[in-house]
Amino acid sequence: MRFSSFGELATACGDFPEGNARAAAAVAAREGTLTKPAGSLGRLEETVAWLARWQGRSPPRLERVDILVFAGNHGVTAQGVSAYPSAVTTQMVANFAAGGAAINQLARTADARLRVLPLWLDQPTADFTAASAMGEQEFLAAVETGFDAVASEADLVCLGEMGIGNTTAAAALTAALFGGGGERWAGRGTGVDDAGLARKRAVIERALARHPKSLADPLACAATFGGRELAAILGATVAARHRRIPVLLDGFVSTAAAAPLAKVHPGALDHAMAAHVSAEAGHRLLLKELGLRPLLDLDMRLGEASGAAVAVLLLRAALACHTGMATFAQAGVAEKSSD
Amino acid sequence: MRFSSFGELATACGDFPEGNARAAAAVAAREGTLTKPAGSLGRLEETVAWLARWQGRSPPRLERVDILVFAGNHGVTAQGVSAYPSAVTTQMVANFAAGGAAINQLARTADARLRVLPLWLDQPTADFTAASAMGEQEFLAAVETGFDAVASEADLVCLGEMGIGNTTAAAALTAALFGGGGERWAGRGTGVDDAGLARKRAVIERALARHPKSLADPLACAATFGGRELAAILGATVAARHRRIPVLLDGFVSTAAAAPLAKVHPGALDHAMAAHVSAEAGHRLLLKELGLRPLLDLDMRLGEASGAAVAVLLLRAALACHTGMATFAQAGVAEKSSD
Repeated sequence: MRFSSFGELATACGDFPEGNARAAAAVAAREGTLTKPAGSLGRLEETVAWLARWQGRSPPRLERVDILVFAGNHGVTAQGVSAYPSAVTTQMVANFAAGGAAINQLARTADARLRVLPLWLDQPTADFTAASAMGEQEFLAAVETGFDAVASEADLVCLGEMGIGNTTAAAALTAALFGGGGERWAGRGTGVDDAGLARKRAVIERALARHPKSLADPLACAATFGGRELAAILGATVAARHRRIPVLLDGFVSTAAAAPLAKVHPGALDHAMAAHVSAEAGHRLLLKELGLRPLLDLDMRLGEASGAAVAVLLLRAALACHTGMATFAQAGVAEKSSD
Repeated sequence: MRFSSFGELATACGDFPEGNARAAAAVAAREGTLTKPAGSLGRLEETVAWLARWQGRSPPRLERVDILVFAGNHGVTAQGVSAYPSAVTTQMVANFAAGGAAINQLARTADARLRVLPLWLDQPTADFTAASAMGEQEFLAAVETGFDAVASEADLVCLGEMGIGNTTAAAALTAALFGGGGERWAGRGTGVDDAGLARKRAVIERALARHPKSLADPLACAATFGGRELAAILGATVAARHRRIPVLLDGFVSTAAAAPLAKVHPGALDHAMAAHVSAEAGHRLLLKELGLRPLLDLDMRLGEASGAAVAVLLLRAALACHTGMATFAQAGVAEKSSD
């Protein structure tokens, strides 16, 4: 689906469907009958109710789990913000196709379908210290790619990315949305040294000073400071909401990509769960800003939807308990005494 | 294997084999060649190295994962410390056998073998506010059951438990080992109310005052304040070390069960990883005392090895990455630049 302007996209966020409270309540009611103390599976129970709420179905299902990895290239790499050359983005896309990357192993382990979508890798976004990373229509084209990548048959969508330089884009975007500058949001990404980190911070400060007019509009921020893969994740997040598919966000870049939606419309990310908190410096801060509590905290910082794929394993475990366990009545187990 | 006395068991802990540093180093060396920034899979990489160290094999394997759930009954339930009647222990063992409990679903999801070992359920331990829960030989018989339950063919052993009243036993045991009394260690277990929690705290205080002589010997503490299922977990932890099998500890009770070993011999739990931190109050404190960092933090508080089974999913994901990913050379991906 193509949006014609920032304004049309923002309006679509205002029309987001709400979750199905009845489905979530049905899950909670069944949980209370299963042979365990009430609530003792903790966040496993919470995730099943969340799946039910956003699928509008009790019990929810995880028959088809899609992992979408969007890839983009970034003009800001000219500023020496990454430990790896830009060519690695294309090389890694080839590695995904050949099955050699972490996400290939994780998707197989999680019994999920992996789809990798490279976005005009031969046309990096503009260096946002000099110009807007993308123009409005360029941004909306990438949003469209993400929107159209979400299959309505999916029961869950995991959103991830690959793009040398994109932790700098994500940090610039979150700084633009939430304030605090490069000092607050820049991290080491794929592993820059102290000098590289100082460059990232300075680049973000220069970018923020260069584009004061963008700061008032969250979607303009996404076009100005983001990247094509981030725009696609934003589009996919919108599509999933319209198609009633819950979303697992991956790390710092994926979460930053979706963050403008929460600024456009409160509750726009209610159908999204943070799969994990990354070791990338800004992610914990960003999750706090968004009120998202991550499922996992494993010091991962790879991207590629790797954290989301691992979280799918938890969701499968949670759903197996919910659908497979006996009730107190079925098992002849005494319930909690009234005291 | 039967130990004849606390002293003989303590001596066995002094003879524990060390891990294989070469196998762990081989894992780390391969991780450095895989197509991802160094260390970017975080704790997933750490767990593979840990498996290799304690299996003495690189790469490690997870072909056979055993989940052992020990069940016991506790005389201290006479003090009104649980929200459920003691009969539930036997009822839940029947539920395990019928496949209706959470651990049945989780074991299947994790492709692990579940074995449930009830320990003299018709003979609860003594109420430790009045007498030692077990005599030395009674304790050692339960240790033996746990020791013998560990199959040498296993690549990983998950240790869990079921026993109405056993969070009170675990809290009394950890209070005896680490100090701080009932106030510090008692939690709500399966869900006691405020009055029940106050009873648990008071029971622990009375028990500590009743058995001052036990406090000097960690194994005597395990016999005095513990339970048969806790003793079996201790025995299984010892057996796994001797058989070079890494151990996943589950929640508060399982960790408390193994804790006396760390007091007997520093490093005695180096082959054990904390699968998760439970919502049961004392668990986070106990992990800190033992220097164990949990893999998961999901507000779970069920026991049954449920947290350990979920952690097996992470270990399988970690191993799939380690063995399945392409190297930089194989994939033709440029490595990190030297700056």
